[in-house]
Order: sequence, then structure tokens, then C-alpha cells
Amino acid sequence: MNLHVVILAAGQGTRMRSALPKVLHPVAGKPMLGHVMDAARALAPQKIHVVIGHGAGQVREQLDAADVNWVLQSEQLGTGHAVAQALPHIQAADQLLVLYGDVPLLRVESLQRLSAQAGNDKLGLLTVDMRDPTGYGRIVRDAGGAVRAIVEQKDASPEQLRIHEGNTGIMAIPGRYAGDWLNALSNDNAQGEYYLTDVVAMAVNSGTSVVVAQPGDEEEVMGANNRQQLAVLERVYQQRMADAVMLQGVTLLDPSRFDVRGELTVGRDILIDVNVVIEGQVSIADGASIGPNCVLKNCSIGAGARIHAFSHVEGAQIGAECDVGPYARLRPGTRLQEKARIGNFVETKKADVGAGAKINHLSYVGDADVGAGANIGAGTITCNYDGVNKFRTEIGAGAFIGSNTALVAPVIVGEGATTAAGSVITQTVEAGALAVGRARQRNIAGWKRPEKQA
Amino acid sequence: MNLHVVILAAGQGTRMRSALPKVLHPVAGKPMLGHVMDAARALAPQKIHVVIGHGAGQVREQLDAADVNWVLQSEQLGTGHAVAQALPHIQAADQLLVLYGDVPLLRVESLQRLSAQAGNDKLGLLTVDMRDPTGYGRIVRDAGGAVRAIVEQKDASPEQLRIHEGNTGIMAIPGRYAGDWLNALSNDNAQGEYYLTDVVAMAVNSGTSVVVAQPGDEEEVMGANNRQQLAVLERVYQQRMADAVMLQGVTLLDPSRFDVRGELTVGRDILIDVNVVIEGQVSIADGASIGPNCVLKNCSIGAGARIHAFSHVEGAQIGAECDVGPYARLRPGTRLQEKARIGNFVETKKADVGAGAKINHLSYVGDADVGAGANIGAGTITCNYDGVNKFRTEIGAGAFIGSNTALVAPVIVGEGATTAAGSVITQTVEAGALAVGRARQRNIAGWKRPEKQA
Amino acid sequence: MNLHVVILAAGQGTRMRSALPKVLHPVAGKPMLGHVMDAARALAPQKIHVVIGHGAGQVREQLDAADVNWVLQSEQLGTGHAVAQALPHIQAADQLLVLYGDVPLLRVESLQRLSAQAGNDKLGLLTVDMRDPTGYGRIVRDAGGAVRAIVEQKDASPEQLRIHEGNTGIMAIPGRYAGDWLNALSNDNAQGEYYLTDVVAMAVNSGTSVVVAQPGDEEEVMGANNRQQLAVLERVYQQRMADAVMLQGVTLLDPSRFDVRGELTVGRDILIDVNVVIEGQVSIADGASIGPNCVLKNCSIGAGARIHAFSHVEGAQIGAECDVGPYARLRPGTRLQEKARIGNFVETKKADVGAGAKINHLSYVGDADVGAGANIGAGTITCNYDGVNKFRTEIGAGAFIGSNTALVAPVIVGEGATTAAGSVITQTVEAGALAVGRARQRNIAGWKRPEKQA
Repeated sequence: MNLHVVILAAGQGTRMRSALPKVLHPVAGKPMLGHVMDAARALAPQKIHVVIGHGAGQVREQLDAADVNWVLQSEQLGTGHAVAQALPHIQAADQLLVLYGDVPLLRVESLQRLSAQAGNDKLGLLTVDMRDPTGYGRIVRDAGGAVRAIVEQKDASPEQLRIHEGNTGIMAIPGRYAGDWLNALSNDNAQGEYYLTDVVAMAVNSGTSVVVAQPGDEEEVMGANNRQQLAVLERVYQQRMADAVMLQGVTLLDPSRFDVRGELTVGRDILIDVNVVIEGQVSIADGASIGPNCVLKNCSIGAGARIHAFSHVEGAQIGAECDVGPYARLRPGTRLQEKARIGNFVETKKADVGAGAKINHLSYVGDADVGAGANIGAGTITCNYDGVNKFRTEIGAGAFIGSNTALVAPVIVGEGATTAAGSVITQTVEAGALAVGRARQRNIAGWKRPEKQA
Repeated sequence: MNLHVVILAAGQGTRMRSALPKVLHPVAGKPMLGHVMDAARALAPQKIHVVIGHGAGQVREQLDAADVNWVLQSEQLGTGHAVAQALPHIQAADQLLVLYGDVPLLRVESLQRLSAQAGNDKLGLLTVDMRDPTGYGRIVRDAGGAVRAIVEQKDASPEQLRIHEGNTGIMAIPGRYAGDWLNALSNDNAQGEYYLTDVVAMAVNSGTSVVVAQPGDEEEVMGANNRQQLAVLERVYQQRMADAVMLQGVTLLDPSRFDVRGELTVGRDILIDVNVVIEGQVSIADGASIGPNCVLKNCSIGAGARIHAFSHVEGAQIGAECDVGPYARLRPGTRLQEKARIGNFVETKKADVGAGAKINHLSYVGDADVGAGANIGAGTITCNYDGVNKFRTEIGAGAFIGSNTALVAPVIVGEGATTAAGSVITQTVEAGALAVGRARQRNIAGWKRPEKQA
Repeated sequence: MNLHVVILAAGQGTRMRSALPKVLHPVAGKPMLGHVMDAARALAPQKIHVVIGHGAGQVREQLDAADVNWVLQSEQLGTGHAVAQALPHIQAADQLLVLYGDVPLLRVESLQRLSAQAGNDKLGLLTVDMRDPTGYGRIVRDAGGAVRAIVEQKDASPEQLRIHEGNTGIMAIPGRYAGDWLNALSNDNAQGEYYLTDVVAMAVNSGTSVVVAQPGDEEEVMGANNRQQLAVLERVYQQRMADAVMLQGVTLLDPSRFDVRGELTVGRDILIDVNVVIEGQVSIADGASIGPNCVLKNCSIGAGARIHAFSHVEGAQIGAECDVGPYARLRPGTRLQEKARIGNFVETKKADVGAGAKINHLSYVGDADVGAGANIGAGTITCNYDGVNKFRTEIGAGAFIGSNTALVAPVIVGEGATTAAGSVITQTVEAGALAVGRARQRNIAGWKRPEKQA
């Protein structure tokens, strides 16, 4: 049996009030449709058919991949019509699994259960017991528990309205029946649309078994039609992320103030304080701690490192036992060796900082190598840019850069060299030498202070 | 029919444990009484009568306006007595609408419904179906649904205690009966107070119709007697703000970490990350994004602008496609033209920054004009203050200010001019010129490092 | 009657996935066991016996104190066996109160009630009415309400499963029976453990009265077996802290975004904005306000002081009416006199700042005295470190430090003295004098800008 996944992603999503097609609205930084495609991929399908319509070009451009067959539904004539667009690609022995581009939280295990139960000769429905099923089609079963029908809210009897098992629309259709059923759908209804749901009645009438699977929780099948619902999905997703890292041995001081938008790899005995945001690919090693309000993006944090409050780390590698922040801004290409220290109001970029080196205060170190054990004084600036070109600064191991030093790159400060506070360094400082580039102080006694001007 | 609103605002609020009169405690930065007055104003009343007592002077001073009649209730003898203070201003044809200065979340539509139903010949009550009505007066109705009485908790039968419809105290009283009813109130009760609620019995006994309106939700009629309740009001208010902006096309990554204390005007397809605080008058144009933890106050953010994490923007105008932050502090009088860039640890104040100009790192630019496309190096300081006077710095279009430059205002750097890193600039730099104001470097070989002192 | 508290703290806590013994995992920055020991101490017991096992050395080292008797349980053979380890210290007239090192939120009043009811001749049980008692032993009572048995989930009849009163395991055992009961325990059960719970049956069978106390709420008896539960405890604890400070007269703009890890002492009419973290010993005086996202640690904030957004204050004393931040980083040994002002991107350390003095922008002031009314310009750096030694900077009252001044310590700037912008100050500046230490500007007309290198 080959699996073909069909994802319906043609809707406009008017209630999002957006120029962006609905399925491109992100949850945790990834388009909803991207989440659905990733779940589909985990089932190793023969092909993923994505039915697109509104904003088709934009959707395709953003999510194109080799395993995707983009199917254009030029008119939106209903879910049944949408699925039918994929029929040319389906064989009798296949299973056709229907998903929705705006229902992004489905777990792979739920889909696996549904697919496995249905096989290629039964109709599989994903249903869910809802706290409040209002508005959803109800699953009507016979005395033996077999599914007899899906009854829409408006057609339901009072007794049927009390049913809490609702239809999610997600289903697995045997390839051998798909053509007959989809072609037999009628649009003779108030909306004039072809409803996929009607295949359930066809299956029941034709004696095809209807099997049911359920997701782990109701949240899995929630969709987003407006930004409020989108925000609910975001929070459910983030709660899952929080639960996952806590189970791996991370202490989160507030799981409801924790956001992961990407992939977080964690060791054990990590402490993450409140209001931390993770983006992209981030790894945090054993025993590290992340202070409140930090933003970590595409970076690795070494074992035992301490990232203090308000730090913003992007594209950086932070070694073991480093101290970073508070208010440290590490930009891409920053690499800290073990026990290096970056302090407050310090920005680094393309900077290799050696073991135990310190840049503690109010500095900009960019396009630079800082040797092990060097001490960079407060207010140090690497002048790496002449308006068109960037140049590197090399600071040797154990060098001492005095406060308020401007290092005009390209420039080399040798091992163990010193620069005097307030100097502008434009030429090589040899190892062990002292460089002074500042004016001598003179005092003017009895100086008259400026007066308030009229 | 003329509408007179009477707002009871004389209470002390002992449980607030505060030197501030209760009704001045803010929700979303505005006194609770201010919210009630604004709701009243939306009804276009003839007059708003505010009954004040504790902290009367302070209340009046903070919220005085032309449409307000301040009525001093020197002794707090109950709600009925308070409303009676406004009687001299009421005519027979008027409607008297009673509100409370510590019930700030009432929606205008709820009041409109109440007022419209009551007209000037029926008693209108605002009642609410409560999840837990304990402590509230219950609305007792007859078989036909007509209100028969309000029964206080302590006087209620077990059957009456099961009623979930509670009295909010908010009511619309026909001017023609107000005098008779209020003057007939008795203080013959345990507290020795005149209770406004007793007019309901008078209406029923005199055959006056009692009509009922209900708010949209229970939250609308919540009041605050202590800071815990005040915090609940704050959160309900903020949830409303979040819902409102989401419906307008804003993605909020966490609606429960979003605070608006003032007026926020939004375009579409705006993304607001977690923990953002909005104060005063703020507008955000289409496609802009606001990073986590930003504070925006009295400012406008142009289309497509990106405000990065930890930025603090106050009194600034930010043009289209600008990049701001992280850690940018824009103070009042900052104006950024399109595509300008303010980076980390940069403070601006009364600064006009031209299109595409960049102030990327660790700088203070105050009282300054920065021309289009100029590049301000890291560590640049405009020395705008001599201790008593402030002076302007003018930097021409395309100028390049080297790192660690001190610009001693008043000073002009011409178009396309350059300053060398580490310079102190005290005089005009002509267009296209290079200004150097720094000492030459000299190296001292074999310098002996300081030793640890005893 | 002497009270002996026995705290069971030997478990490993495998599900914490941690190298740290379970009871050392912190809630609000203090080990869970530390909370339990503090609650025990409030009962003024004769002795606190802590039964340790996994990580015994680490637990003991971290929490050792004179009032603690550490009892090593080398094999974990069940709760009954654990308590039995303390038997040698118990006299017949004593009461033995059993607590758990991973149940840290119990209120002292609940323990007092339990202990008082039980005295030294009755068995006291702490039970709790649970929303969901699944998995807990149920308290079975007779028609008269007397406790008859505790029935475990797996042994309970359908009727017993409907009982919502659950066993917490916390109990007070009369010293006179403790030995007999504990020694009579059997490990003839599926786990092969000695269960403390079995003493209830012994009490009932021997005719000893069994009395029951209940905690104030279910949260008090929650324990933590994994990090998710630990996070729940953290949040319950923080909600308590928030409630406590609100009742004292503090406005919290969001009680669910407020963290106290230590002791917070507050005055009245304090406003604390969202996402503030308090650590260690912190006091905030009347009328002070704390902006969003601040971190306050071991510091005191004077009356009417305003701490603005993103400030990080540690080990500092802030006087009345001071203004701090946004983005101010005050490190240990900072002391601000009244009305001093520390602005954005400013770091202070071991700095005495006089009344009304200002350090408003981008400065590092460490190991310094700043006189009253002095003005420290933007970009000022105290060069307090020569690589091995630290030196002090003294700035007199009313001095004016020009922007971008480097003060090379040890150095003295006299009262009312001025330094020119961009100066390096290495020698004493006499009172009233002007010190200049910068090069003169020279302009080079028609300078050719660098070109893009290949």
C-alpha cells in the first residue's frame, strides 16, 4: 500500500485580515502548512499533494520541495472538489490521507494510527471527543458502535446535538473507492459546494467498513481561522515544547513564558529563567543556565555556561563555563572559548575570543581575534569599517587593552602587550610593548563655567 | 429625554491600603473613575455628576472637565444617599443612570441597552448571570419573568440562594420618580445606610415597570476593592485589547503577555512578539514587527519597520522599513526617515536621522541632525551639553563619523566629510574633508606591567 | 510534649533526570527540602530529623544546621522504614511529625493544626479533598465520620474510588506508639516496601483515636516527581508571593508575571510592572515604581524612586526619589543618594553617587565617589583596573565630566572642576579647574575616501 497525502491549502482566510495566504501564517515561526507537511513527511508517503488556490504562487515558493506535488484548484468548490484534484495521481491500491493546511498541531502518532487502521480497504475517520462540539458534525454510531453517519450541526436532532464526538474532517480514503466516491459528490446544498464529508454516507451505504482513530487530545485538531485562534495554536505548541524540555531534564521557571521557534537540543540540569525566546537551531549543554528575558538564536551554549539576563545571542558558539551578559549582544560569527566573559553593553561580531578572555563593559568587538586571557577594557571599540571595507583586529594572548581604546583595523596588538587608556591604536603593538596614543593632560585653573544663554 | 449620569466615587477603599482614593487607582494606566467617565461620555449625557468624598480634592483635580459636575458627599451614608446628592440637577423628564467609579470595565453598548430599555418611565436594572453569585443580591422574578425583588444574600431563602442572576447596582431611574424614591429611603438597617437597591421594591410596589439589561459578560461589572481585584481588572482589560488588535490583523505571539495603556492604532500584518508594553498614543503601520520585550510610548512605527528585542521607544517617529534595536533607546524628538538604522546600546534624543543613515553601536546622538546615508561609528557621542546649555550637532548627508568620535556641539560636519576614529571634533568640518583630532601613537617596548600591590 | 519532625528526603527522583538529589531542586531559588525545614522550624520542634539517602552528602552539605539530625537510610526500603530510622531519638511523651522533602508548599498553620489535634496520644492525619484523587489512597470513614482506613487506589471498591478525600502521607504519630507500630510494619507487598500508611490500620485496630486536619488548599500538599510538577510548585509559590504583596498595598500589573526568590519587604503604593524578578533580600519603600522586566537582587529601593524598564540592580542601595534606567546596571557596592540619576547603558560598581548627581548615558563608573550634583557625561569610563590592582576615582561635588572622558584611577577631580570632552585624565584636577587631555583637531580638505577593495 502506497500512501498519498492530500493537504488542502487553497483557502483565503479572510478573517485573518491579511495579505498572506492563511496557511502561510506561522505557528512557532513556521507556516501552518509547513507543520502539516512535516507531519505528513514523517509518514513516508509516496507523495504529498498540496491543493493550493489563494496565493498559490506565494505558498508554493515558500514551501516547495521535491516530495511535493502542487495541485492548483482554480475555483474553490468545496473540500470534496479539492481532494478530487489529486485523483489522477492515486492508484487503486493506495491510501489517500486528507489533511488540512490550517490544522498544524496534529501529532504524527495520531496520523499513523488512523492510516494503519484504515489500510487500503476501509474508510478511516479521525474523530475527537470535544468539550464543546457546537458547530461540528457529530459522529452518529449504531448500537454496536459502528459509525452510521456524520450529521451536521444544522441537521442534527436534539439527541444528536448531545453527541460530543465530532468530525475533524481528517480521513483516510481507500484508493480503490476514491474515484467513485469523489466523482459522485453533489453540490446540491445551500453553499453549492462539494463536501468531502459526504463520502462517509457512501461508504456506509456501500458496506465499506468505517474505522475511527482519535488524536491524543482535542488541541491536535484545532485550526485557525483568525488571529485569536492562531494565538491559541501558538500557545498550545509552546506548551508542548515546554513539556518536552522539562521531561528531558530542564528546569523552566515558568513554562508559560517560554517560546521555542525552531529546534532546541538540551542536556540535563539546565535552568531556563522566565521569558526566554529560542529561535532557529539552538543547543544548550549540561548545567548551563539562561537568565530571564534572553533571546537565543542559532547558537550553541556550552556546559556550565551562564547566560545572564537580557542577553541576545545569535549565530554564536559559547564555550563551557563562559559568562555572558547581562545585556550582552553576541552576533553571528562570535566564538567564545571556555571561561571567556562578555559583560554588559558589549557587542561582538565575527569575533574569536580565547579562553578566559574578558570583554566586560561597553565595547564593540567585531572582526577580531582576542587571545586567551586578554582583558579588553571598558569602552573599547574595534574600528573595523572604513565605510566600504571591513578589517580585522588581532589581539594577542594576555594583552591588556586599556579603557576607551579605539583599535583602528587592520591592526595587531601582540601577546602580553598593553594599550594605555584613551588611546587610538593604528599601528602594530609588539608583544609586551605599551602603546600610548593620547594627548597629555593640562589643567587650566580658575576656569569659568559656561553660563546659561538667553 | 435628557440623560444624567451619576457616578459614585466617594469611597475610601481601605482594603487598597493606599494613600490614593480608590477610584484613582489605575487600570491600564488610567484611573478607574476615568474609564467610567469615558463610558458615560460615549452616551452623550446632559451632565456627568460625580459624587466624591474621600480624597475629593485629589479626584477632582485629576479628572476635572467641563462636562462634569462634582458633588461632594461629606458623609458616606450609603449609595442611596450618594445618588440623592445629584437630585437638584434632575428634571422629571430626565433619566438618571447610576454608575460606580470602581467598576471600570462596563462596555458602552451595555449601558446603551440599559438606558434605551428604561427610557424615562421605567426602572432599568443591569443584572448579570454569575458563575458564583455568593454575596450578591439575587434578582427574584415572578413566573412571567418580571422582576419582583432584589434579595440580599443574608436575607435569601435556600431557593433564592440558587438564583445565579445577581444585582450589579447599576440602574437607570426615571427622573419623575427619582426624588420620591430616594427621599423615601430608610437607613433603618444594620449598617445604618441608605441603600439605593431599595428603590426596586418601591418601583414594584408602585407598579412601575422594571426592565433588565445584561452586560456582554460578567467581567464588565467587576469592581475592585483590593489590589488583587485590581489586577484581575487589569488583566481582563488587557485581554480585551489583545482580542481587539488580533481581530484587526495583528499577530500576537502571546495575548496574555501584551499590555496596552493608552491608544494603539494598527495596520495589518503586524507581528508583535511576547511581553511588549504599549503606552500613550502609539500607531504601528502595515507589516511592521515588534520584537520581544519592547516598550513603545507615544510613537509611530512606519510600514515594514522592524523594532528588535529590548527596544525602548518614546516620543519618536520611525519611518518605513527602519531597523531599530536590539537595545535601542529612542527618546522624545527622535525622527527616523525611511530605512534608517539604530543599533544596540544607542540612545537618541531630539535627533533627525536621514534616510538610510546608520547609528549602529554604543552611541549617544542628541540634539542632532544626521543626513541621509551618513554612518555614525561605534562609540560616537554628541557632546550637546555644557552643564547649562544644549547645542546642536549637524552631520551632513553621507558623512562618515569614525568610531569613538566626540562631537562637541555646536558643531557641523559637512556632507561627505569624514572624522578619524577617536577624534574630538570641536570645529566645522567642511564637506568632503577629513578631520583628525587625536594623538599619534607611540610604542614603548618591554614595558613592565603593573604588579599586584600589597 | 516535645515535637520531633522527621523529614523523608532519601529519594533519588529519577524522573527529574538530574544529577541533583530530588529534594535539592529549588522552588523560588531555595531547595524544596529547605522550604520543608523552614516550615518545620516554625513549629519550634525539639529536633528536625532528616532521613537522607541518595546524594546524602550533597544534601547535608547544602542544608546543614545546628537543629538538624541527619539520619542516613542506606537502603530505601519504604516510608515506614525511613521514619523508623529516627526512632532512637523519640520518647514516649513526644510527637513525631512526618513530612516529605519534596512537598515544599505546606503552610505552617496547617502543620500547627495537625500537630495540635493529634497531641501525643492520637494519630493525626493530614488529608485533603482533591479535585482528582486518582492514584491517591482514599480516606474511608464510618457513618460517624471517624477514619476507618486508608484504601489504596488499586484496592479500592468502585464506591471507595468515588471518595475525594485523599491521603497526603503527612501524619503526626504519638511517640508512645511509634516504636510498636513502625516495628510491626510488614514488607509483604508487591513492592517489598515498609509503608508508613499501614500505621493507620494499627491505630484503628488498637482503638487509638485517628484525627484529621486539612490544609488550606490542595496546592499545599503537592509534591514534585518531575520538572513539570516542579514548575507547577514554582508557579503556586509565586502566586502566593504576588497575593501577599498585593495585600500589603502593592499594585502588580500582572501577578502571573512576577517572581520572588527570597524575601521582599514592601511599603505602600508601590507599582511593579510586568515581568519583574526579585532575588535575595530586597526592600522597596513607599511610592517607588519598578518598570517592566527589571531584575532586583539584594538591594533597597528608596521612597518614590523610579526604576525604569530593563534595569538590573544587585547589591545596591538606591535613595529616595532616584531615577534609574532604563537599561541601568547597578552592581554591588553602588549607593545612590537621593535624587541621583543613573541612565541608559550605564554600569556602576562600588560607587557612591551623591545627591542629585547624574550619570545619564553609556558610562562605566566603578570604584568611585561622585559628589552631589556632579554631572558625568556620556561615554565616561573610570579606568579602575590596571590588570592586577583596582584604584578609586574621586569626583567632587558639582564637577562636570565631559563626554567620552577616561578617568585613569587613582585620580581626583575636585569640586566644581570640569574635564573637556574626549579627555584622558591621569592627574588631579583642582577644584574649579578645567582639565583638557585631548589632541587639537586638524582638517584635511578634499580627502579621498577609501575604496572598496577587491
